[in-house]
Amino acid sequence: MSRPTLGVLFSAGKDSTLAALLLEPHYDVTLVTGSFVVTEDWQHARETAARLDLPFERLELDREVASEAVDQMAADGYPRNGIQRVHEHALETIAKGSFDAIADGTRRDDRVPSLSRSAAQSLEDRHEVPYLRPLAGIGRAAVDQLVETTLEVTTGESQRVPRADYEAELRALLADRDGEAAIEHIFPDHTQSVVRGRK
Amino acid sequence: MSRPTLGVLFSAGKDSTLAALLLEPHYDVTLVTGSFVVTEDWQHARETAARLDLPFERLELDREVASEAVDQMAADGYPRNGIQRVHEHALETIAKGSFDAIADGTRRDDRVPSLSRSAAQSLEDRHEVPYLRPLAGIGRAAVDQLVETTLEVTTGESQRVPRADYEAELRALLADRDGEAAIEHIFPDHTQSVVRGRK
Repeated sequence: MSRPTLGVLFSAGKDSTLAALLLEPHYDVTLVTGSFVVTEDWQHARETAARLDLPFERLELDREVASEAVDQMAADGYPRNGIQRVHEHALETIAKGSFDAIADGTRRDDRVPSLSRSAAQSLEDRHEVPYLRPLAGIGRAAVDQLVETTLEVTTGESQRVPRADYEAELRALLADRDGEAAIEHIFPDHTQSVVRGRK
Repeated sequence: MSRPTLGVLFSAGKDSTLAALLLEPHYDVTLVTGSFVVTEDWQHARETAARLDLPFERLELDREVASEAVDQMAADGYPRNGIQRVHEHALETIAKGSFDAIADGTRRDDRVPSLSRSAAQSLEDRHEVPYLRPLAGIGRAAVDQLVETTLEVTTGESQRVPRADYEAELRALLADRDGEAAIEHIFPDHTQSVVRGRK
């Protein structure tokens, strides 16, 4: 019996990588990176996928959603609602594809992005595709254990770590709109991790 | 580097088995079955653990908690709050042990047993042990996919399927207390599954 296919929203960070690796024994996994094609940051994810020896796809997202998200972040003065908007759009987009199931790396302790149980059920019902969040019941301490035994990770300030989450593209759009200074205001520097490969 | 140890609360049902199998590549898994030693139903779990080729432990639970749970169920007329009480006690008990991490098979669509995010965090903080719920972000359709590719399962009415969840022992205590008729009132028959082994 052939295994079902699974598309995992992938940023090259440790959470989305762990989500993929937890489900890899049970599905034919493809790592899927959403991009507005504003920058080439999605290519970092392609390189990490190659080091993980997993198939990769770029998922083209709607540039209009990015503009709305940047407007929202500028109005809010913080990125949370904009990131949430973009993640929901990415889930809707991957759900329309041909995978037998979809997944992401959102985890228990994330404030955003996250979907409520009813929003997850709605996504599944509307697109007739199961949506898995394997880290939804896993907190920071356990993620650290899993990373320790599984992944080679580089950690650094978010602007210097070559990930492919939505942040890099949204930063670029924000700089176009309001200048470089707006970036530091809305995205205070924080530590990020990028996966180098498997242990 | 040796892998951390993980104790998974185990009933021989498909959910707790899937939880164990999802984490097996990353931890040294022991299947742990809570029992008030009211009946010998815990031995069904030992047999299933042997068929899964995983280590097994019986976890002795406090008979007083079972009595309180049965009183609660009799007062309520339904089992939900009693089951929740017993599961919380089992988690507290396994958390006091020597595992590097603990887990259970509670899933997204379960009404009970379940722990809120803050209750899970509190359990982890008080016992200094990570608590993983790998099915917390996984719904019915995806569980069915995972079972299909992974497990041999027998399904039947709950009284005829030899599991080792708390229900069998609580049924027996309730029958002692209020007679056999009370069981049918409080535990209407429902379909259960028991794992026969791996595919």
